[in-house]
Amino acid sequence: MERRQFLGLAATSAAALSIAGCEQAGIIPPAQVERAVAEDASLPNIEWQMATSWPANLDSIFWSAQLVADRVAALTDGKFTILPRAAGELAPPLEVLNVVEKGTVPIGHTVSHYYANRGAITAFGSGLPFGLTARQQNAWLYEGGGLDILHEAYADQFNIIQFPAGNSGVQMGGWFNKEINSVADLAGLKMRIPGFAGQVMERLGVAVQLLSGGEIFQALQNGAIDAAEWVGPYEDEQMNFHTVASFYYYPGWWDPGSSVEIQINLDEWSNLPPQYREALKSAAYEANLMLMARFDARNPAALNRLIDTGGVTLLPFPDDVMKAAEEAASELFVETAAADPEFASIFKEWSAFRDAIQAWHGLAERGYLQYVGRSR
Amino acid sequence: MERRQFLGLAATSAAALSIAGCEQAGIIPPAQVERAVAEDASLPNIEWQMATSWPANLDSIFWSAQLVADRVAALTDGKFTILPRAAGELAPPLEVLNVVEKGTVPIGHTVSHYYANRGAITAFGSGLPFGLTARQQNAWLYEGGGLDILHEAYADQFNIIQFPAGNSGVQMGGWFNKEINSVADLAGLKMRIPGFAGQVMERLGVAVQLLSGGEIFQALQNGAIDAAEWVGPYEDEQMNFHTVASFYYYPGWWDPGSSVEIQINLDEWSNLPPQYREALKSAAYEANLMLMARFDARNPAALNRLIDTGGVTLLPFPDDVMKAAEEAASELFVETAAADPEFASIFKEWSAFRDAIQAWHGLAERGYLQYVGRSR
Repeated sequence: MERRQFLGLAATSAAALSIAGCEQAGIIPPAQVERAVAEDASLPNIEWQMATSWPANLDSIFWSAQLVADRVAALTDGKFTILPRAAGELAPPLEVLNVVEKGTVPIGHTVSHYYANRGAITAFGSGLPFGLTARQQNAWLYEGGGLDILHEAYADQFNIIQFPAGNSGVQMGGWFNKEINSVADLAGLKMRIPGFAGQVMERLGVAVQLLSGGEIFQALQNGAIDAAEWVGPYEDEQMNFHTVASFYYYPGWWDPGSSVEIQINLDEWSNLPPQYREALKSAAYEANLMLMARFDARNPAALNRLIDTGGVTLLPFPDDVMKAAEEAASELFVETAAADPEFASIFKEWSAFRDAIQAWHGLAERGYLQYVGRSR
Repeated sequence: MERRQFLGLAATSAAALSIAGCEQAGIIPPAQVERAVAEDASLPNIEWQMATSWPANLDSIFWSAQLVADRVAALTDGKFTILPRAAGELAPPLEVLNVVEKGTVPIGHTVSHYYANRGAITAFGSGLPFGLTARQQNAWLYEGGGLDILHEAYADQFNIIQFPAGNSGVQMGGWFNKEINSVADLAGLKMRIPGFAGQVMERLGVAVQLLSGGEIFQALQNGAIDAAEWVGPYEDEQMNFHTVASFYYYPGWWDPGSSVEIQINLDEWSNLPPQYREALKSAAYEANLMLMARFDARNPAALNRLIDTGGVTLLPFPDDVMKAAEEAASELFVETAAADPEFASIFKEWSAFRDAIQAWHGLAERGYLQYVGRSR
């Protein structure tokens, strides 16, 4: 504790920025290596509580938080233990970033677009409407400079460092209590949908509500909302949404490669032995890959169950809904950029990356998928 | 050394199988945990040479081998060092598996379809023609039971344990010294293409050669071959193939989510402290994610350079080539399964997984990509 107080906030922020720079170059700062060597014989026992935004029964997204904890324990011979806690235990589900920022909780597992009210740039951490697929999001974050940009922004604004730790791929378009045949059918609909996607839906006439995952079922059941998006077949099935809504739409255009992230208070991060920091980073890579793998492996059978025994009607969004949403998203980005220079600066780089990688994926990747789609 | 000799081959194989089982359940065997705790105060310094199949100038695939080494060092406070060596330094580039099997070299970084001559099941480690995309391959390996099956097979047949450690996504269809307007144009063509894909090409009239990456340029230059596939724009550009062939085709249908893997001799693996094994597994996840991210981030600009200043003609494979290749691949799988019960058993599970996941990806994922493709 003395040490943390000695470092103080100003020193910590400087340290954080230099850490971000070193990570960009893949280098551990020499001072920290020395400290690690000196401390190696007696690495400390550390126990962290982890705040999450998820019900603990979700053996995909909550499981991915547990994966981070398990990997860190395995890499540190059990000396650094992290205990993921269900939404609400340490913080309200949509306030994980806030408690990590304050330092009340050292680490969180959440989705950054829940914090749109804290600044538009949070959208880049999870994903933007009509933006990057899972692979494109990882390419931008890890190798396109995205994570470096976000590290600086999160350090400045939230005293947090964050790492991608899961992805859903293109999600389903959500649950509706009636058929949507055109944009006009959206007017007046009360829908749970967070972030930029919610703002887009508002422009299409939807009355948007921001609810946490655990609140959706009851809101659909008692008619407080008419529609909700969550993730995809496997997790939606666990949430029992098919028992309170019948129409299941696709595709989710809101964040086609939505990243989950771990967020760590920077004071706590700076005080960790370098080996523990490396363990956390390493665990986040694994969780990122594994959550996507689990969704991909389990969604197919879950979707079949929802249709075969769940009585769900599966439908694509009408083309005019997709077009109207994309146009509204484009307008929203222009207006947000005009009002927020930081968003504008990141959006410019992000857009260029998106256009280039979508052109590339339109070639070999889409060429293959289109052939396979036609031939089967 | 005494300890290794004491363990002996039979004991090691039993240990390996139990390790594979425990990993499947995500558990470290209790005896090993005890050993780790006992040894923790004095974890040994270990230095391994790593044989690779790659020229060292490839800052994508060779870089991903270095990533494994860097991560392991960072997680073990520099005590466990791995030194990736260029193709040919420790072993011929297409004999990495063989030297790791013998124990001459403890660890390798290679692609399993190079070892098709050692058994058809090696194809599942990298990928099959008209098979799984990168995401699908990861889903099958990690969460669809694929890696568990392969761990058993590799332990039995090669005394090796392997982990996915990189992916290329759908590759380009390769370099040709003439235009390919139909299947007939393939007849008599001499082409470098390994594994099942080579056998498919043989059925389309191609004279197939198995060359390592480092041998392709010269073979194209001196006319020993007329065509070759490697990876994609970024790496192909580094190989200078555009200076010796003009026609660049897409998509690569041979292994649409080709995995690179680390292969570790099982005796060496069994003798590692558990923390070092965990570090290797963790590093492999990271490398898997990061190689894909690097290819995705760098391919777009590389492709533009190849076209704009490299004078390359970019063309899709004609539909009849794709159809003939898919039919030949299907026949080949049927014949291989009839002759090889182990292949048949894995192929049955793999096919069911492929069909289910491709149906799921045909919905939300393809729905989104098709919309984006149309609207831009």
